[in-house]
Amino acid sequence: MRAVIMHAPGDVRVEEREDPRIVEPTDAVIRLAATCICGSDLWPYRGADQPEDQHMGHEYVGVVEEIGSAVATLEVGDFVVGSFVISCGECGICREGHPSRCVHAVFVDGAIGTQAERARIPFADGTLVKTPGMPDADLVPSLLAASDVLGTGWFAADAAQAGPGRIVAVVGDGAVGLMGVLAARQMGAERIIVFSRHADRQALAREYGATDIIEARGDEGVAALEELTGGLGAHSTIEAVGTQEAMMQAIRATRPGGSIGFVGVSHDVEIPGGELFFSAVHLHGGPAPVRRYLPELIDLIWRREIDPGTVFDLTLPLAEAAEGYRAMDERRATKVLLTV
Amino acid sequence: MRAVIMHAPGDVRVEEREDPRIVEPTDAVIRLAATCICGSDLWPYRGADQPEDQHMGHEYVGVVEEIGSAVATLEVGDFVVGSFVISCGECGICREGHPSRCVHAVFVDGAIGTQAERARIPFADGTLVKTPGMPDADLVPSLLAASDVLGTGWFAADAAQAGPGRIVAVVGDGAVGLMGVLAARQMGAERIIVFSRHADRQALAREYGATDIIEARGDEGVAALEELTGGLGAHSTIEAVGTQEAMMQAIRATRPGGSIGFVGVSHDVEIPGGELFFSAVHLHGGPAPVRRYLPELIDLIWRREIDPGTVFDLTLPLAEAAEGYRAMDERRATKVLLTV
Repeated sequence: MRAVIMHAPGDVRVEEREDPRIVEPTDAVIRLAATCICGSDLWPYRGADQPEDQHMGHEYVGVVEEIGSAVATLEVGDFVVGSFVISCGECGICREGHPSRCVHAVFVDGAIGTQAERARIPFADGTLVKTPGMPDADLVPSLLAASDVLGTGWFAADAAQAGPGRIVAVVGDGAVGLMGVLAARQMGAERIIVFSRHADRQALAREYGATDIIEARGDEGVAALEELTGGLGAHSTIEAVGTQEAMMQAIRATRPGGSIGFVGVSHDVEIPGGELFFSAVHLHGGPAPVRRYLPELIDLIWRREIDPGTVFDLTLPLAEAAEGYRAMDERRATKVLLTV
Repeated sequence: MRAVIMHAPGDVRVEEREDPRIVEPTDAVIRLAATCICGSDLWPYRGADQPEDQHMGHEYVGVVEEIGSAVATLEVGDFVVGSFVISCGECGICREGHPSRCVHAVFVDGAIGTQAERARIPFADGTLVKTPGMPDADLVPSLLAASDVLGTGWFAADAAQAGPGRIVAVVGDGAVGLMGVLAARQMGAERIIVFSRHADRQALAREYGATDIIEARGDEGVAALEELTGGLGAHSTIEAVGTQEAMMQAIRATRPGGSIGFVGVSHDVEIPGGELFFSAVHLHGGPAPVRRYLPELIDLIWRREIDPGTVFDLTLPLAEAAEGYRAMDERRATKVLLTV
């Protein structure tokens, strides 16, 4: 089969690899229907992490081709959505609702790689959720988004306790931040303020539910937010970048007693304890427990109540994955869908 | 009147000061019934903070002697308990339940100082809560504890989401940590594991509800905790110290999806963003919003359902405050009550 391999920063190729097979009785092999490139794939692409012939991709939808003897909830032919972290569904951490830190957790990225034609998914019962039937073609991008970018934005909004009567601030106007806007609106947030300097992303943010845009960043951005919120700050802040500046902006934008959901993968971030202490905010984040939200997200998509697939602004065949990475790196695209 | 002044680290004296008077119509002047020395008073005492002729004390119970013309909920002669932070009770942050970060917040310590015979309390309606009547003498220590040490331990347990079915870990066996144990038991925690190396504090911890004691610290302590919790860690961790070691111990002791309530005043703490990200814990802390809990705590004490006053293991007259500081500094006492 064909698969996307990153040999070094900036060096992405589509190459032949062996077809995956069932290894454990709890495995499923799926044929990918669609996959995509994640903002987090840009960390190794830009050299912030070191890829070593890494089999890329961790967002996926597809059709079950084969199942192990112990798989109970899936059948060959089912259309499935999976999380970017393998989870058993049965350990204490999974049962308590945090499957992305399952005691058997494996990151799909690297270990499996779903920018490919097929993938072996361990703990298929715990990781995959089947859709009510074969989806219409126009639903596929939205179901694919649920796999990570929507699920992560949803977790960020949930961790930030977005909801009725709450003012939400979003730091980061990439795909995850934009999905955080959609999630916050769906959760009933009163007002959604997005920090963004890019006209196209501002437009998409407004489409998803943003009520205000702030172009300033850092402490200047925080001052602008305070002006919009009677000096008090946001109740709920989504941090979807992962840098020191973004984290400090999120902490300072949040009012005392408010909550921050941080989902940008932290790179060289040090949080000053004293400032966090006196800020009196709630801080929760990490790799999103997407599997927890999948049934609800699939249901919302199936009933066409949300349309997160519009976050994909470039679609390419798998063979042109390298161009997809370039387009995202150069900000010509927010999020690239790869057809398989 | 007499008041306790810290002139420099280690230099505490009882001196004459002018009696406080009503300044604003929202003020009350109270005659202290009892006050105490806080673990946080040891930071300046030991030179970690620089005191400058600081009027000490922020925990207090007493009788209202005089009220300003705008005070509506109190009368002269009421017995009252106050928080260690002045709060108006009416701003957005107070209404949302975080009075310790009221937009008019003033720390009683330094600005007012309740290690004294009398104190002027601004925003009396928002800061003070009257008891149902004049308390029996044996209830006074418990009511005094509600003012900070119990209120802070209670907040820590609440922020850590202690409750039925939850395993609670407590880092720090000082008075606040011990009150966190009492709070966690009251909230219905299934198991309460306390890190402690001091036999007397271990005994008190068990009296308040600790089910297990771990003597090891740091990563060794975390390993011992994991052994007690099936490898998963605590659901709810109270951090009641404020050092880097204690914060990292708390983060590492907490299972993914679990919660940390941190109330030790952070001194030189830097939280590594990457480790916090992948830990997937909830982090919430800061100066406790004690005023939020006072009505409930006073009720529990009044009905004799909790007896936090036992945390005081040394009682001295105000005139001997310097000896009280020495006893706490030398760990001869956990918590010192000063009679006025």
